Amino acid sequence: MSNSNYDASVLIEALPHIQKYYGKTVVVKYGGNAMINEELKDAVIHDIVLLSLVGVRVVIVHGGGPEINAMLKKIGKKSEFVKGLRYTDRETMDIVQMVLCGKVNKDLVTLINHAGGNGVGLCGIDGGLFQAVRKTDEDGTDYGYVGEIRKVNPEPVMDMLESGYIPVISTVAQGMDEDTGYNINADLAASKLAVALQAEKLILLTDVRGLLLDRNDESTLLPEIKVSGVPKLIKDGVIAGGMIPKVDCCVEAVREGVRQANIQDGRVAHSILIELFSDNGVGTMFF
Amino acid sequence: MSNSNYDASVLIEALPHIQKYYGKTVVVKYGGNAMINEELKDAVIHDIVLLSLVGVRVVIVHGGGPEINAMLKKIGKKSEFVKGLRYTDRETMDIVQMVLCGKVNKDLVTLINHAGGNGVGLCGIDGGLFQAVRKTDEDGTDYGYVGEIRKVNPEPVMDMLESGYIPVISTVAQGMDEDTGYNINADLAASKLAVALQAEKLILLTDVRGLLLDRNDESTLLPEIKVSGVPKLIKDGVIAGGMIPKVDCCVEAVREGVRQANIQDGRVAHSILIELFSDNGVGTMFF
Amino acid sequence: MSNSNYDASVLIEALPHIQKYYGKTVVVKYGGNAMINEELKDAVIHDIVLLSLVGVRVVIVHGGGPEINAMLKKIGKKSEFVKGLRYTDRETMDIVQMVLCGKVNKDLVTLINHAGGNGVGLCGIDGGLFQAVRKTDEDGTDYGYVGEIRKVNPEPVMDMLESGYIPVISTVAQGMDEDTGYNINADLAASKLAVALQAEKLILLTDVRGLLLDRNDESTLLPEIKVSGVPKLIKDGVIAGGMIPKVDCCVEAVREGVRQANIQDGRVAHSILIELFSDNGVGTMFF
Amino acid sequence: MSNSNYDASVLIEALPHIQKYYGKTVVVKYGGNAMINEELKDAVIHDIVLLSLVGVRVVIVHGGGPEINAMLKKIGKKSEFVKGLRYTDRETMDIVQMVLCGKVNKDLVTLINHAGGNGVGLCGIDGGLFQAVRKTDEDGTDYGYVGEIRKVNPEPVMDMLESGYIPVISTVAQGMDEDTGYNINADLAASKLAVALQAEKLILLTDVRGLLLDRNDESTLLPEIKVSGVPKLIKDGVIAGGMIPKVDCCVEAVREGVRQANIQDGRVAHSILIELFSDNGVGTMFF
Amino acid sequence: MSNSNYDASVLIEALPHIQKYYGKTVVVKYGGNAMINEELKDAVIHDIVLLSLVGVRVVIVHGGGPEINAMLKKIGKKSEFVKGLRYTDRETMDIVQMVLCGKVNKDLVTLINHAGGNGVGLCGIDGGLFQAVRKTDEDGTDYGYVGEIRKVNPEPVMDMLESGYIPVISTVAQGMDEDTGYNINADLAASKLAVALQAEKLILLTDVRGLLLDRNDESTLLPEIKVSGVPKLIKDGVIAGGMIPKVDCCVEAVREGVRQANIQDGRVAHSILIELFSDNGVGTMFF
Amino acid sequence: MSNSNYDASVLIEALPHIQKYYGKTVVVKYGGNAMINEELKDAVIHDIVLLSLVGVRVVIVHGGGPEINAMLKKIGKKSEFVKGLRYTDRETMDIVQMVLCGKVNKDLVTLINHAGGNGVGLCGIDGGLFQAVRKTDEDGTDYGYVGEIRKVNPEPVMDMLESGYIPVISTVAQGMDEDTGYNINADLAASKLAVALQAEKLILLTDVRGLLLDRNDESTLLPEIKVSGVPKLIKDGVIAGGMIPKVDCCVEAVREGVRQANIQDGRVAHSILIELFSDNGVGTMFF
Repeated sequence: MSNSNYDASVLIEALPHIQKYYGKTVVVKYGGNAMINEELKDAVIHDIVLLSLVGVRVVIVHGGGPEINAMLKKIGKKSEFVKGLRYTDRETMDIVQMVLCGKVNKDLVTLINHAGGNGVGLCGIDGGLFQAVRKTDEDGTDYGYVGEIRKVNPEPVMDMLESGYIPVISTVAQGMDEDTGYNINADLAASKLAVALQAEKLILLTDVRGLLLDRNDESTLLPEIKVSGVPKLIKDGVIAGGMIPKVDCCVEAVREGVRQANIQDGRVAHSILIELFSDNGVGTMFF
Repeated sequence: MSNSNYDASVLIEALPHIQKYYGKTVVVKYGGNAMINEELKDAVIHDIVLLSLVGVRVVIVHGGGPEINAMLKKIGKKSEFVKGLRYTDRETMDIVQMVLCGKVNKDLVTLINHAGGNGVGLCGIDGGLFQAVRKTDEDGTDYGYVGEIRKVNPEPVMDMLESGYIPVISTVAQGMDEDTGYNINADLAASKLAVALQAEKLILLTDVRGLLLDRNDESTLLPEIKVSGVPKLIKDGVIAGGMIPKVDCCVEAVREGVRQANIQDGRVAHSILIELFSDNGVGTMFF
Repeated sequence: MSNSNYDASVLIEALPHIQKYYGKTVVVKYGGNAMINEELKDAVIHDIVLLSLVGVRVVIVHGGGPEINAMLKKIGKKSEFVKGLRYTDRETMDIVQMVLCGKVNKDLVTLINHAGGNGVGLCGIDGGLFQAVRKTDEDGTDYGYVGEIRKVNPEPVMDMLESGYIPVISTVAQGMDEDTGYNINADLAASKLAVALQAEKLILLTDVRGLLLDRNDESTLLPEIKVSGVPKLIKDGVIAGGMIPKVDCCVEAVREGVRQANIQDGRVAHSILIELFSDNGVGTMFF
Repeated sequence: MSNSNYDASVLIEALPHIQKYYGKTVVVKYGGNAMINEELKDAVIHDIVLLSLVGVRVVIVHGGGPEINAMLKKIGKKSEFVKGLRYTDRETMDIVQMVLCGKVNKDLVTLINHAGGNGVGLCGIDGGLFQAVRKTDEDGTDYGYVGEIRKVNPEPVMDMLESGYIPVISTVAQGMDEDTGYNINADLAASKLAVALQAEKLILLTDVRGLLLDRNDESTLLPEIKVSGVPKLIKDGVIAGGMIPKVDCCVEAVREGVRQANIQDGRVAHSILIELFSDNGVGTMFF
Repeated sequence: MSNSNYDASVLIEALPHIQKYYGKTVVVKYGGNAMINEELKDAVIHDIVLLSLVGVRVVIVHGGGPEINAMLKKIGKKSEFVKGLRYTDRETMDIVQMVLCGKVNKDLVTLINHAGGNGVGLCGIDGGLFQAVRKTDEDGTDYGYVGEIRKVNPEPVMDMLESGYIPVISTVAQGMDEDTGYNINADLAASKLAVALQAEKLILLTDVRGLLLDRNDESTLLPEIKVSGVPKLIKDGVIAGGMIPKVDCCVEAVREGVRQANIQDGRVAHSILIELFSDNGVGTMFF
Repeated sequence: MSNSNYDASVLIEALPHIQKYYGKTVVVKYGGNAMINEELKDAVIHDIVLLSLVGVRVVIVHGGGPEINAMLKKIGKKSEFVKGLRYTDRETMDIVQMVLCGKVNKDLVTLINHAGGNGVGLCGIDGGLFQAVRKTDEDGTDYGYVGEIRKVNPEPVMDMLESGYIPVISTVAQGMDEDTGYNINADLAASKLAVALQAEKLILLTDVRGLLLDRNDESTLLPEIKVSGVPKLIKDGVIAGGMIPKVDCCVEAVREGVRQANIQDGRVAHSILIELFSDNGVGTMFF
C-alpha cells in the first residue's frame, strides 16, 4: 500500500469533506463487480475502514448471487428465477443462508479485520434486525422462501456502531409468519436499514455508471436528480428495466428521511471515497 | 408449553439456586443429541432463554458435525479424519464455515428469538473473538485448516451481554498466520471463552452420563471431583479415550479461574436447568 | 424449602409469564391473614424476593392494624373507630407511627434480607413520599390525625428500585398542613403509589376470594372485570360494604394508568406467584 | 429565622472553612440535650441542612434513651441497666426498635424536610447496614438483645448520599446469629459507620464541654489531642468514667482512617457549624 | 479574612436564601468601581467563589474600559467615541482584544484561583461563544470594529460549568462577516448570555444606587419593578440617559426567560451576596 | 482549497498512519516561521483541524516573540535579553500576557474555528494549568518575571479534549510564590504538558531542518536518534548552541513517558501531516 509519490499534504483537500460526514451514518449496499474483482474488493474494504476511522458510522449490506450460484451448482441444483427473482425452495434457502451468512459475510469481516478495522457480521435474524413474511403477488406468483421485509429493528446495528464495530449485514430475514429464514433483496434491505438508521447517505454499488440520458453515451451521465423528477424520467424511458427497482430503493429512502441516495459505479476503485470525500461525484445522486 | 398441573408456587424451590447464579456468566458448549433431537433442542433453547431472563449471563458455543457431514455428502465429498480430527482442506473449510456460521448458528438464533429471547450469532472471526494459527504436531501430521486458538478477545461477547443479547458462537477462528478461517474444536473453544469471561460455570453437553467408575454401571457416576484428583483417574483408566480431551477442557478451565466445569448428559431434557437450579446435579462437576 | 420431588424443568412453564413481567413494576398491598399467619408470611416474602430476582420491580405497601391494636391495648388505650376508620388522637398517632415504621416495617425488611433479598424500609415521610392533609368530611366528622394524600413523590421509591433494593413502605404520611405524621389508608396509598410509578399491576392481598356474584358460593368468583363494568355491579349489590373502597382503589388505579389491579386471596400460599406466573388467576382482576 | 441585623457579607468569613469540607463526609452522632431541647434541636437540624446544601455529605446517627424510657414507663415496664447498658429483653427490644426507627427517626426526617432538606430515615436492618451478634462478656454477663456490630455495609448510606438525601440512621442492627434486631450503642455505631464511609470527621454531640484537664474548671478544656496521647490521659485520670467509651470511639475512628473525631458540646446552639465553619473549635478534637 | 467576632451560627440566616439559588445560574456583569477599587474587587471575587461553592452556577462577564484607555494612551492613541461607543479602528481592536482577553481576564482568573476557586477565562471567540457582525446604523454611522451579537453558543460556558470551573468571559466576539474579532458591549453580552443559559438572575454591577424616582434622593430607590412598568418610567423621565441601555438589557433578559435582572450598586462591598443571600435587596430588580 | 487534480483515493495511503495515531495525544509547540508566514500558518491550522477530525487528541502550545517585540516597540520599550531569555520587568510582563493570551492565542482560535475546528484558548493561569515560581540562577542572575514551572495540572486541557475542543495554550504561568503571571519558555511548557498528558508525540516546530551531522549539509540530517545517544552528540558538537535546550526538552519528554519527540522543520508546508501520516519523516525524531 506504500506509494513513493504519496504526499500526505494532499489530505488537506479531504478536510471539508470529512467534516461534512463526521458522525453521520452511511449505508453501503455492496455487490456486483466490486465484490468479485479482488483489487476492487480490496479498495472497497479499505475505503470502509478509513470511513470508520475518520468518524463516519458506516454499515455494509451485502448479497452474494455469484457465490450462491456456484454453491447451488456444486450440489447439482439449477438456479431458477421467477420475474427476475431467484425461486427459493427449502433446499435453496438453506444454501442462500449458508453462503450469505456463513461464507460471504465472514469473509468480508475477515478482510475488514485484516485491514485494521473491527468488523462484526450479522444477518437479519440476529436480534430480529429484519423481520419478513413470504412474498406474495396478486397474481399468485410463488417465489418460495423469498421474503418481504415488514419490520426493521435497527437496535443490533446501532449497538454495534456504539461499541465501535463496523457492522456487515447479510440479507437474510427472520420469518414472522413461518419458522424460517427468508431470502430478501439486498438493495431493498439496504434502503430500509438506511431509513431505520436515518442515515445521511445510502450508496448502491452497481456495475453501471449511473443514470445516462443516452444509454450509449457515458458522457450523458446525470450527476444528480431530485426524487420528484424521477417519474418523468421513467415515463421518458431514461430509467428502465433493472434500473427501476434500484431507483425505487433510492427514492423510497430519500422520501423516508435519508438525505441522499446514490447509484454509483462500483467498477471504479475507491468510488466510495471519491463520492464522499471529493467534489467529484461518482454516479447519480438522488436527493 | 401449558400444563394444567403446573403450580407456580414450585418456583420458590428455585429461589436459592437462582440467587446463586444471578449476574454470573455460564458458558454452554452445545452439541451431541441435544442438538439433533427436536424435543431436546427445544428444551435447551428454553433453558437458555430462562437463564437469560433470571439474570444469568449465558453464552452458547456450538459445533455441528452431523450437519457438516451432511453437506459434505451433498457435494460428494468424503469426510476424512486424522487422529480423530476432521481433515479440513480448503473446500471442506468453506463448507465448515458455511454450515456452522450460516446454518447452525442462525437456526439457533431463530429458535431463541422465537422463544422470546434476544439472540445474536457470532463466530470467532467477528471482532477477532478467536484468533488461531494452523495446528501443527511435532510428528508433522497435517490436519489442513484446523486451527489452534492463540488469542481470545472476549470484548464482542461482553458487548453483546451488556446490550442484553444471548450470544451464540460458532467455532470458526480468524487466522493469524494465514488469511483464512480455521476449523476449531468446540469443547476447547468453549473452555477458553469461559476462561476469558471468567465464567462461574462451563457446561459441556455430551451424550454420556458423566464419569463412571465402572463404565457399564451408570449407578457408579462420579457426581463431582477436584481437578487435582483427575490424574489419578486417568492413570486408573476411569478417564480414557474420547473423555480425555473433554476432561482436559474442564480441568484447564477450572485451573484458569472458572469456578466449576461440568460434563453432563445432554440427553436428559432440561439438564441445564436441573444442574443449575436444583440440588440434583447432572453428570460430573469439576471444581 | 427443599423438596425431594421438585423438578427444575417445571421452571420452563413459568418462562412466558416471567417474560411478561420482566422490567415491569408491581405494587403489592400486603395485609390481612397473609401478614399474621407465619407460613403465609413466609410464602409472601419468598414470592417478593423471587419477583425481584427475575427482574420485576416489586414494591410492598403495608399497614398493620392488629399490631397497632395490640400496642394500644398494652398502654391501656381503647381503639376507637369513626365510620370504619381508626380515630387517631395524638397519642394514637405516635403509636401508629412507631408500630408501622418501627416494628412492622423493619420486621418485614428483616425477613426479606434473611430470604436473600435486599430490602429497605421507608415510610411516607422519607423523602416526602406521601404528603397529606388532615382528612375532613363535609359533615364535620373528626378522625384526628387521619390524612388524605395530596401529593405522591415517587422519587425515593424509584431511587431504591434503581439501586436494586426492594422498597417496603409504611403507610404514614408527612403533614403538609401541620407538623405531624398522618395515619393513611394502606389500600389507597398502594393505589396512589402504583399510579405514580405507572405500575403494570397493583395487587391488594385480602382475606376474601375476590368478587363473588353470589356471596355464599365461591364458585361464582368473577375472574376479571373491566372497570367500566363496576358501577353496574355496585348497583346490583354484588360489590357492597367493605369491598367498595377496595374496588374503588383498583378502579382509580386502572383509570390513572396502572394496567391491571387485583383483589386477591392472601390466604392462598404463594398467591402472588400464582397470579403473575401462571395461567391460573387468583381473585378478581380489574383492567 | 429572619434577623434584621444579619449581614450576608459575613458569609465570606465562612468561605475557607466551607472549601475545606466541600465534598467530604461528616458523621454526626446526635444525642443528649441537643435532642431534647426544642431550640437546640432546631439549631442542629438547620446546621445539618446547611451542611448538606454547601456540599458536605452529612449523615446523622441517633439513639433515643429518654424516649425509650418514656415508652417503657407507659407500658409499665422498668428500665434495667447492666454495667451501664440497658438490659434488653424481647419486649424491651420491640419497644427500642419501635421508638428509634418509628418515632425518633421519622420525627427527625420530618424536621429536616420542613427545613428544606431531603431526609431519608434508615436503620441498621435496611440493606444490611449494621449486622450484629449478641453481645457476650467473658464473665457471662447477659445483656439480652444488645448487639455487637460485626459487619458494616455502607452501601445503602452511600446510595442515599449519591441520590442527594440526608441519611438519618437509627441504631438498631440486623441479627446475624438470631432472627432478631439488636439494640446497639449509638456512639459505636457512628464511629464504625464513619470508618466504613472513610469520613473526614466524626462528631459526637454530648452534654459536656469536652476533655477538661481539671474537671471543675471549663477553662482547662483540651482543644485537641493526638490519639497517641490518649493512653497517658487515661492513666492520669483525665479521661475517666463515661468518657472512656466515647474517647475509645474517637480513637478507633481516627486509627481506622477518619481524619478527625470530635467530642463536643451539644448544649451550645449551632455547635456543628461553629466547629466546622469557624476557627473556634467546640470541644475536643482527636486526630 | 479572619474576624474574632465572626459567629458561624449566623450562616443559618443564609440557609433559605442558599436553598433558593441552589443549582441555579447567575450571570454577573462585572464593571465600574467594583473593578477598580482593590477592596471592592477582592469582595466581588470572594462573593463569586462562595457562590460557586454553595452550588450556584456563576458566570462573570467583564469589559475593561479604563484599562483599554490606559493602554491606548500608552501607545499614544486617543480614545474616540461615536454616539457613546468607542470608535474601534483596526489598531484599537487589537488593543481591546489584548487588554480584555489577555490582561483583565487572566488577572481575574488569577484572583479567583488565589481565593480557592477554579477559574477559566474565555472570550467570545473561544468555541464560537459570541458571534457577531459589524454594527451598522441606518444613518450610516461607522463605529469601526464594534460588533452586534447575532448568535450565542453557550456550549463552552456550559461545558466549563459542568466541569466545575467558574467561567470568566471577555466581551470580544468572533466575526461572522469578517475574519476579525469585534468589540462588543458588555451589558448586552451579559444579557444575551444569561438568556442563552436561561439564568435565574442577571446582575449588572454599576456605580449607581439603582433606579431613583428622584435622582437627587437615594431614599427614593425603586427596589423592584415589573418589566411591563418600564415604558411608563421612561416616558416619565425616571429612566433616562445612560440608564436606558442598561435597563433595556434587563428588560430583554427577563422577556427572554431570565427570572430576574438587577441593576445594582457595585460600590457596596459584597453587594452580590447581600442581594442573593439576604432579604435586603441592593439596587433595582426587574422581573 | 479545491484542486482539480486531487484524487480522494490517495487517502487510502494515509490509512495505516491514521490508525496508528487514533485516540492518541499529540502536543505541537507552534512557533517560528510557521507562525509568521501566512501560507504556512494556514497549512498548520488545517493540519491541526484535520488531526482533530480523524481522532487525534491534538494540543497547541504557542509563544509569540515577534508580536511581543512589536508591541514593546509600539510603547517605546526596548526588548532586553539576559542569557538568551527576555528580561521581563513588570511592564513587559503585562505586555507579554496581553500579547500572548489576548492577541496571538485568540487569533489562532479564530483561524481554527474558521477552518471548521472547535478551538478554545487557555493560558497557564486558567484552571491552574501551569504553576511557576520566579526563575533563579545560582549566580544570582535576575530575569524579572520569568518563571520556572513547578506544577502542571493537565485537568483543564483534558476537560477540553473530552468535550471535543482543540486546546490552544499560551505560555504564561500562574505564580505560586507571587501574585503575578510569569513568562515561561514555550518549548519547556510544551514538553512538560506532553509529559503530564502522557502524549504519544511532542512536535517542536522550528526553523531548522533538524539535527545535521554536518551543519552545512542538509543531506546529513539525522532522521531519528535514541535519547541515550544524545550526550555523545553534544560532546561531539553536533548538538550545540540554541539546539541544546530544544533537544533537552525532547529528551526530558521521552524520559518521562512521551513515546516520541520531534524537532522538525516548520518551514515545510503541512510538515505535521507529513510527519504523522506518511512514511517520510520531517526533521529528527527522539525516542
